[in-house]
Amino acid sequence: MTSLQVPALSEAGTALCLVCILLVPLSGAGLAIINTGLGRSRSAAHSMLASLCVVAVAALVYFICGFAFQGYLGRPAHILTLAGKGWSWIAAGPLFLQGLKLDGSPDSLAAWLQILSVGLAALIPLGSGADRWRLPAICASTALLAGVTYPVFAHWVWGGGWLAQLGANYGLGRGFVDAGGGSSIQAVGGLTALSIAWIVGPRRGKYSPDGMPTAIPGHNAVQVLLGCVLTLVGWLGLNSAGAILFTGIAPTGTVLVAVNTALSASVAALAAVMITRMRFGKPDASLVANGWVSGLVASSAGCASVTPAAAVFIGLVAGVLITFSVELLEARLAVDDPGGAVSVHAAAGIWGVLALGFVASSGAAGQWLAQLVGIATLLGFVLPLTYGLNWLLDRFLPQRAPLEGERLGMDVYELGASAYPEFVTHTEEFIPR
Amino acid sequence: MTSLQVPALSEAGTALCLVCILLVPLSGAGLAIINTGLGRSRSAAHSMLASLCVVAVAALVYFICGFAFQGYLGRPAHILTLAGKGWSWIAAGPLFLQGLKLDGSPDSLAAWLQILSVGLAALIPLGSGADRWRLPAICASTALLAGVTYPVFAHWVWGGGWLAQLGANYGLGRGFVDAGGGSSIQAVGGLTALSIAWIVGPRRGKYSPDGMPTAIPGHNAVQVLLGCVLTLVGWLGLNSAGAILFTGIAPTGTVLVAVNTALSASVAALAAVMITRMRFGKPDASLVANGWVSGLVASSAGCASVTPAAAVFIGLVAGVLITFSVELLEARLAVDDPGGAVSVHAAAGIWGVLALGFVASSGAAGQWLAQLVGIATLLGFVLPLTYGLNWLLDRFLPQRAPLEGERLGMDVYELGASAYPEFVTHTEEFIPR
Amino acid sequence: MTSLQVPALSEAGTALCLVCILLVPLSGAGLAIINTGLGRSRSAAHSMLASLCVVAVAALVYFICGFAFQGYLGRPAHILTLAGKGWSWIAAGPLFLQGLKLDGSPDSLAAWLQILSVGLAALIPLGSGADRWRLPAICASTALLAGVTYPVFAHWVWGGGWLAQLGANYGLGRGFVDAGGGSSIQAVGGLTALSIAWIVGPRRGKYSPDGMPTAIPGHNAVQVLLGCVLTLVGWLGLNSAGAILFTGIAPTGTVLVAVNTALSASVAALAAVMITRMRFGKPDASLVANGWVSGLVASSAGCASVTPAAAVFIGLVAGVLITFSVELLEARLAVDDPGGAVSVHAAAGIWGVLALGFVASSGAAGQWLAQLVGIATLLGFVLPLTYGLNWLLDRFLPQRAPLEGERLGMDVYELGASAYPEFVTHTEEFIPR
Repeated sequence: MTSLQVPALSEAGTALCLVCILLVPLSGAGLAIINTGLGRSRSAAHSMLASLCVVAVAALVYFICGFAFQGYLGRPAHILTLAGKGWSWIAAGPLFLQGLKLDGSPDSLAAWLQILSVGLAALIPLGSGADRWRLPAICASTALLAGVTYPVFAHWVWGGGWLAQLGANYGLGRGFVDAGGGSSIQAVGGLTALSIAWIVGPRRGKYSPDGMPTAIPGHNAVQVLLGCVLTLVGWLGLNSAGAILFTGIAPTGTVLVAVNTALSASVAALAAVMITRMRFGKPDASLVANGWVSGLVASSAGCASVTPAAAVFIGLVAGVLITFSVELLEARLAVDDPGGAVSVHAAAGIWGVLALGFVASSGAAGQWLAQLVGIATLLGFVLPLTYGLNWLLDRFLPQRAPLEGERLGMDVYELGASAYPEFVTHTEEFIPR
Repeated sequence: MTSLQVPALSEAGTALCLVCILLVPLSGAGLAIINTGLGRSRSAAHSMLASLCVVAVAALVYFICGFAFQGYLGRPAHILTLAGKGWSWIAAGPLFLQGLKLDGSPDSLAAWLQILSVGLAALIPLGSGADRWRLPAICASTALLAGVTYPVFAHWVWGGGWLAQLGANYGLGRGFVDAGGGSSIQAVGGLTALSIAWIVGPRRGKYSPDGMPTAIPGHNAVQVLLGCVLTLVGWLGLNSAGAILFTGIAPTGTVLVAVNTALSASVAALAAVMITRMRFGKPDASLVANGWVSGLVASSAGCASVTPAAAVFIGLVAGVLITFSVELLEARLAVDDPGGAVSVHAAAGIWGVLALGFVASSGAAGQWLAQLVGIATLLGFVLPLTYGLNWLLDRFLPQRAPLEGERLGMDVYELGASAYPEFVTHTEEFIPR
Repeated sequence: MTSLQVPALSEAGTALCLVCILLVPLSGAGLAIINTGLGRSRSAAHSMLASLCVVAVAALVYFICGFAFQGYLGRPAHILTLAGKGWSWIAAGPLFLQGLKLDGSPDSLAAWLQILSVGLAALIPLGSGADRWRLPAICASTALLAGVTYPVFAHWVWGGGWLAQLGANYGLGRGFVDAGGGSSIQAVGGLTALSIAWIVGPRRGKYSPDGMPTAIPGHNAVQVLLGCVLTLVGWLGLNSAGAILFTGIAPTGTVLVAVNTALSASVAALAAVMITRMRFGKPDASLVANGWVSGLVASSAGCASVTPAAAVFIGLVAGVLITFSVELLEARLAVDDPGGAVSVHAAAGIWGVLALGFVASSGAAGQWLAQLVGIATLLGFVLPLTYGLNWLLDRFLPQRAPLEGERLGMDVYELGASAYPEFVTHTEEFIPR
């Protein structure tokens, strides 16, 4: 119920929230270089250029129509009365942010945060589509995400929509709660990444004829691990701003948010070190990086409502979870996800959302049920929607590069130039066939 | 007229402004790695070391005498009465920031912002002088920029000087307006970059004997595109702080500034993707990076006084403009500007200043004329001044490295060590003669 | 005496402090890529992974028990009465931050800042142990630093301990003063780095049989210099937050802190350029990077209590000092410190602490003596303690990799994969024997 009120922000609270949002693009920078570093050198420029395009398209489309569909608490929306209760299904704002005064009001802050965070969601599928996803399709797919999938689900969570109303209407805790976007940013992005991995299929040479996966190592581990720290800084901003705007905590209470975020990432990375060391004999740098990010992802939903000790627990599970999830997807389900995007963002995001239902310190009755309804909506509605949209897109604009593109590398094939023209590389040996 | 008042900042407003300034060095980091990535691998350490030196020299010289010449609204200045009006030509503050209490007052914030932003201006010519500009000359040229050119022009714009007075004295809108430094930082830096490109001349091998330009690709596209995101974060801080200090907007109104900045960059990058794809068949990663930065540059002047839709328009034109401007300079005017600094910073900066005159939402009468006077001053006074100073410097301290320096690479020639000593590179093939 | 009071922060002051802390991980990112860039390519992934682990272990251990031992002004501590005065030796807080409300109170901000800054201290020894320090030992050593050495000394400085009480109890100025952690973060980290360098010994091939050192250049100068700028941004946050929390300045007074920090780094880098140019004929990029960071380090202690001109002086001495200190350690004392960690963090940190005693603008009587007592404590207590702990650790968990590890590189030896698998490198020639 409290979750359905617009926060009353002092000038200092507004300033704090605004500055936190300014840090969010560092998450994008981090995810972009993680994705790129985990990919091949001959697709590196393509991966970075695609990241820039994705961020740009997402911001533009969200500005054009995304916020109109998403809205914010107290703004106009389409209400449908079901079972005697009014449910909000989609916002009914004007296009182009018209009529929204960008003066520091909570709704202007929400719009500005989303212009950036929708780009974050759209960066996620670049991880799973690396080395074979075509740039025109990337841009179009991003437009669908930023214009349809993201705003619709985010309206339900953050815009006063039906998931948020589960508390007031049905007494399920405070309704579906997600402070930093574990569902609306991470899981939406991660499920889109899964759709893309399905649609474009595995990289040539990833699976032997009898279906055994081959390891294709990332081309720059330093970049991947630098990305982790940049991602942390951005996430501290993201979770803090989200907690202020979407759960209504006092702005200075974001100390808790920040501590939880940092601890969750730390423990998740250490868990990945331990697990990979136990299982493979040596820690695996790329899985540790994935573990770190999964800790950030898992922290998002509950960052404002759990204790630091609970955040440690959430991070621990996330770090363990993704090492198995990555292997499950790659070896059993034949999903070739070079960046681990599905595990890191969808699995850990959903875990974080679920964990909030059980360990939130407020402990509102029925909270866990509200969280489960949200997860069911992600799997039962968002996944089919985003898969369907991208499948449809694939009919008109083929998403996967032809064989020649993979052979040449996406850099030369789509951009006409390689990322590192002066360095001598030996990339062919990674392609057995 | 309102532009000639010192803003009255609350403690929260001061805090917001202060933190925004802390982000500005990320712009510098971004520009530095963009410049370096667009240059050759054998000048990469030189380019980064020069960036650090430039930032350091600029901060030091500006601290010593720059702020004394630039001043701020309400601080002592030399006034000349012309046509019955008092015009402020140059500030008359003490050296070494003496007497300035660094306690969060608007003038202390202005001084602190400039200590960083003058470094930003000084980084710009590194893009055009890449691969052949000598370090001692770089440092000396930076001292001239930070001690003379920048403070004089910035006094006129931001220090209550005659350009800012055009509103109060002649009724030209609110006088020359530039919130984020499209003129005083970007165009001043960009015109200095043009002077340096003229003085040092093209790289060996850039033009064939019949004057045809050869493409010399940058050595690290990933770095270039990472730089774009870092630049965005710094620019969000720069434009926000500038808008508060130099146009007097309410601090929480920087939401508009931030949205405009992000949208302008996004659209400019997408415009560059489109144009290069249409013209060359494939998008060009380095032109897209240049497009992105040109969108940031163009957004600066008007970030606080245009609508988001106008910011989209400004970015769109900037992105299209620089793809042609880069080609014009390279192919027609024989200006070898490896980093695209002249187009990105001078052309887009001037475009942003001009655009403000026509699309500013306040729409003060005569604003466009004030902006044109500012542009005329840039072209008619700043360009000759900065060219003259650097030409003079060249008499005493040769700016261009000798042939041997270019052959060896600036790293080995001036630093005695290469940037990547363990990597195998093949750089010679880019030098046809 | 004023130094022994908990600051009374307004909401705006709390917000400012909180956001400054959010920037601190950028220092960590900077130090990590500086260390990595100054090391060999075949230990690059190891260096970055170790950085991530160090940050994670430090945060976790500090959360578990570090803050309980460190405490903060006004929190419970063990008091011992000596010579008629009560002295605080160690804090007596509960484990796991229990009972600490993370709501923006000064003690919650102090805890949050330290969760990050203890990681900064723990990153420092990675510089001296590069290319041969084993990951399990790194993690264990970090736990000792974060759980014992750091909190004990930091309690004395920042937690109301006996060093801080020297003012109130013995009239030595305001007691030992260190705003940004020149002693508690930098010197503690730097002295630990010295201990590690002693314990693991020089890299194979570093010294010829007759004891002459060989230059082993870092593998990526661009990364090193990019790290410098990131470090600056984080340091601006660190010094500002420390000055607010540990010296009680007004939050908006952090403009002075920021200006001092930037000027000190700038001048130190330029001093290193000058000195290396005079001595070796050409500026040395890695020493300039070290100079820049040493300027940041030296600025920390006095950032809130010296004038900008004094900050320039402090930076100048720091930049000169470390060029000689690096050589002294390498050539005379046979300490192989690839990252220059001992000089940059211990020597410059101690210099900054000392300088505060003589040039602080408040000029409290006896301040210099309080500072000297602090330095004596660092050398006479912290160094033996950290050496002893790491020596002991070495008995149980060998710190140095075996010969094979060095020959293969730490990446392949400990992680099973190299950082740059697609790039052709020639690393063997750097190993003469």
